[in-house]
Amino acid sequence: MPSTLLKLSCPDRVGLLAKIANFVAGHGGNLQEVHQFTDPAEGWFFARLAIQTSTLQQNLEGLRATFAPLALELGADWSIRPIDSRPRVILMVSKLGHCLTDLLWRWRSGELTFDIPCVISNHESLRAFVEREGIPFHYIPVSDETKAAAFKKMDAIWAESRADLVVLARYMQVVPQDLCIKWPNQIMNIHHSFLPSFVGANPYQRAHQRGVKLIGATCHYATACLDEGPIIEQEVTRVEHFHSEADLLRLGRDCERLALARGLRYHLTERVLVRGNRTIVFRD
Amino acid sequence: MPSTLLKLSCPDRVGLLAKIANFVAGHGGNLQEVHQFTDPAEGWFFARLAIQTSTLQQNLEGLRATFAPLALELGADWSIRPIDSRPRVILMVSKLGHCLTDLLWRWRSGELTFDIPCVISNHESLRAFVEREGIPFHYIPVSDETKAAAFKKMDAIWAESRADLVVLARYMQVVPQDLCIKWPNQIMNIHHSFLPSFVGANPYQRAHQRGVKLIGATCHYATACLDEGPIIEQEVTRVEHFHSEADLLRLGRDCERLALARGLRYHLTERVLVRGNRTIVFRD
Amino acid sequence: MPSTLLKLSCPDRVGLLAKIANFVAGHGGNLQEVHQFTDPAEGWFFARLAIQTSTLQQNLEGLRATFAPLALELGADWSIRPIDSRPRVILMVSKLGHCLTDLLWRWRSGELTFDIPCVISNHESLRAFVEREGIPFHYIPVSDETKAAAFKKMDAIWAESRADLVVLARYMQVVPQDLCIKWPNQIMNIHHSFLPSFVGANPYQRAHQRGVKLIGATCHYATACLDEGPIIEQEVTRVEHFHSEADLLRLGRDCERLALARGLRYHLTERVLVRGNRTIVFRD
Amino acid sequence: MPSTLLKLSCPDRVGLLAKIANFVAGHGGNLQEVHQFTDPAEGWFFARLAIQTSTLQQNLEGLRATFAPLALELGADWSIRPIDSRPRVILMVSKLGHCLTDLLWRWRSGELTFDIPCVISNHESLRAFVEREGIPFHYIPVSDETKAAAFKKMDAIWAESRADLVVLARYMQVVPQDLCIKWPNQIMNIHHSFLPSFVGANPYQRAHQRGVKLIGATCHYATACLDEGPIIEQEVTRVEHFHSEADLLRLGRDCERLALARGLRYHLTERVLVRGNRTIVFRD
Repeated sequence: MPSTLLKLSCPDRVGLLAKIANFVAGHGGNLQEVHQFTDPAEGWFFARLAIQTSTLQQNLEGLRATFAPLALELGADWSIRPIDSRPRVILMVSKLGHCLTDLLWRWRSGELTFDIPCVISNHESLRAFVEREGIPFHYIPVSDETKAAAFKKMDAIWAESRADLVVLARYMQVVPQDLCIKWPNQIMNIHHSFLPSFVGANPYQRAHQRGVKLIGATCHYATACLDEGPIIEQEVTRVEHFHSEADLLRLGRDCERLALARGLRYHLTERVLVRGNRTIVFRD
Repeated sequence: MPSTLLKLSCPDRVGLLAKIANFVAGHGGNLQEVHQFTDPAEGWFFARLAIQTSTLQQNLEGLRATFAPLALELGADWSIRPIDSRPRVILMVSKLGHCLTDLLWRWRSGELTFDIPCVISNHESLRAFVEREGIPFHYIPVSDETKAAAFKKMDAIWAESRADLVVLARYMQVVPQDLCIKWPNQIMNIHHSFLPSFVGANPYQRAHQRGVKLIGATCHYATACLDEGPIIEQEVTRVEHFHSEADLLRLGRDCERLALARGLRYHLTERVLVRGNRTIVFRD
Repeated sequence: MPSTLLKLSCPDRVGLLAKIANFVAGHGGNLQEVHQFTDPAEGWFFARLAIQTSTLQQNLEGLRATFAPLALELGADWSIRPIDSRPRVILMVSKLGHCLTDLLWRWRSGELTFDIPCVISNHESLRAFVEREGIPFHYIPVSDETKAAAFKKMDAIWAESRADLVVLARYMQVVPQDLCIKWPNQIMNIHHSFLPSFVGANPYQRAHQRGVKLIGATCHYATACLDEGPIIEQEVTRVEHFHSEADLLRLGRDCERLALARGLRYHLTERVLVRGNRTIVFRD
Repeated sequence: MPSTLLKLSCPDRVGLLAKIANFVAGHGGNLQEVHQFTDPAEGWFFARLAIQTSTLQQNLEGLRATFAPLALELGADWSIRPIDSRPRVILMVSKLGHCLTDLLWRWRSGELTFDIPCVISNHESLRAFVEREGIPFHYIPVSDETKAAAFKKMDAIWAESRADLVVLARYMQVVPQDLCIKWPNQIMNIHHSFLPSFVGANPYQRAHQRGVKLIGATCHYATACLDEGPIIEQEVTRVEHFHSEADLLRLGRDCERLALARGLRYHLTERVLVRGNRTIVFRD
């Protein structure tokens, strides 16, 4: 039973859910799943409704056209899309392939529904691995001198590819602030620590030095402030005194894979809403 | 901002949420939190709405009276109550006091909102511990010969106390089937294994013999079939080869405390709905 | 600093560790890591010693030859091998490729150290996926009529390949009892439930019906009794009422991958000792 | 079978474990449990041996006297004590009683073996709660003006009580640097975040603002640098967007209780060794 997803956020007021539910019912829509959250501090309303597509008396454009005036009245950010539409996701990698391998498996098997216009890397090492999947691979080296030009080129590829999302799947270059601003909540990063611990470089090394008993990974949207963007998902695992820094890297990989895969899943299924620097995540 | 809680379940149909949301909005009610689930296999609708009490234009009786016809039309099981009303919960214990201690702390500190008409035990050992809290303590010994009479007496105390819930906080006697049937979803048990593993007696001993790498605890409603009632919450912890059976008991206590405290919290805040042998738990 | 691994188990007695440590020190061996466990109920001693190879004054054969008389005196099961020797591991799969993909990544990247003589499957679907890694793929269909012959053929391949271990990486056929007996603690299975819950077929379906709040996976050695062999590792994840059976399959895949990868790691690094139906696992 | 615990750390060298095991065997000691760790970066050796007391041919003083020369030769920090000796632990609290309640239950029930000379608080609110357990309660208020004198008084009580350990069980005053230095690895704190995230005041408030998906607690030794002492144990729990700051406090309490209780257990059973700012914890 395929769904049509209605996602919105707007200032809270009495009767809001009734208005939206009435809209859906007025088009014959059967609700399969409703998530709602009201932030009392912000006075803000967030919702995600999954409507059984086959019960709707209008097509997608019709639905959007009739919802637009209501959304305007509510002052809402909103979107309506079928769950089986395929967002276009560009994967960015450096040399480490564990997250890439994991995402490619979930993509190929159909566990996650999206298209991959291309993979971009600042190294050649994963080319063969990507191309054997039938995915275009762009090698764009980045050095201090070429950084500005390189990211300008990437921005162009993102735009030409009509990317809905860019995933930094252990891409070890910092995306320039202007690109983060230009693509808000459209650049997803996996950071290899449980933020806000160990912002920046070499988090496993610093975790080992600090002697923590837990390490982790954080999936977040990239913003102009490094590692400070809205957190979508985190995962941790226990470590002990006998784990070397190399062990932390190894154990951390499993955290990274899981946190990124779950974060991506939530994003692709319209389960993530952002308000300021916090996310509302209607988990599944 | 105290809430009024509306909980209901009924056959699913188009426009259901709209009807309910319209009802709330029609009384001026501001929705603070909405949880909804539709079970597609059963065609059944479940919801819990937290309404800001101060915005309601009617008192509790008025609200219930006006909701009753709608509920009848929908064929719904339902309840409306203020979140700060205090359910009456009888605690049943044997000799082990860890769950009791935990619940008493959460009760005394106000973390959980409920009243304790009395504690009932088949041993005297926890009397002083209970009475110093100002709670009546009933000692009702249970032997093979006295079992029927003893539980008849307990049933009477439950009824006289107008108990909303009976919590078996490591009470080591099996409640007779007729009482389980008479008090449906009103007897909460904590079983010391992650069910359905190790149904029945001595689960830690059997877990040790089986060499499992995880042990746990299960909070569930007692039904006529031992340890097979609807599961509300489960908790697990890792164990290793060096853990003796005594270690499993020790580690398991922390699982038991947590699973029972969470299960009770969900129950007290109207977050648990039961359908057949499964629970819908709108966790917080 | 490569290690030489000494693993042994024997009846406990006073002075046992002193004898073994003296043996190592007598050959100049620097101990990098010592794990020891005494089972008081069984009166049995288990140990794993990692010795810095470069400090040993004898080569591997010499070491083994001089240890043999001591081991005989102690009545010990034992092995000595360099950590960087590559055990030969045959992977068995059916149609589901998630565990296979995961293990191949860990193998290719060097996270796990082993050789793969071949992959065997009762379906053709994963052939291309395996062969592009340069690994031989054997298709051996299994039906009720051909089962005996098919497993005879597999046994022959295992033997010819001089397999140290056979991994059932979501291989959906039950290995015959005689093969389990012939290859003791050399057939590793991943079962898709947290055993002993849901032994046998369709564990996710039964977990969904039972309404558990946790699902999991169990890595164990296959024995003549289905799903009752010694447990090496288990992993669990939380589920809620809104998770369909398909969701459990999806969430369970991540448990299966992790439990199998960790179990295999422990086995390959001589961290698993078996006594009766229980494992001693010196985790890292 | 009561144990005698031998704990030591010293520079690593070949034959170290043999020397120690020979010493134990030379006195007839049966080893029940051996933990050992060599830190390759530091070249340091750590061990904890549990010896069956009844098999030892010498009493405690004799054992210590004969071990002393060996320890001197090895340059070792060491201790030998029976596991059933009762360390003297002073509990320090402010207004929050959840950790205190938890520790008192584990103490009273015998889960943890220690004596409580007294409880010290900067508030009167928990006096009755402590005194009904038969434990002396000292009220020592702390203000900016009286802080120096107050901690001088506490130091005196610690000394007069011959305290082996001081536990800050949600004691909301910062212990002065000179006291931390005077009582090294003898002041145990529970910090209400997963350090190094949210060092200092109001960690739950800051966790809520940052929008983390995990909160936690850290048990560590207090040092002159606030919240930077050696970490003994950490615990985390998941949080979601709908959890208010008050919810984080509530959920965090369960993390705090568990992390502190486990850290204290490890300390009391000689399972914690400290080297620089890191701990070796031989968990059970």
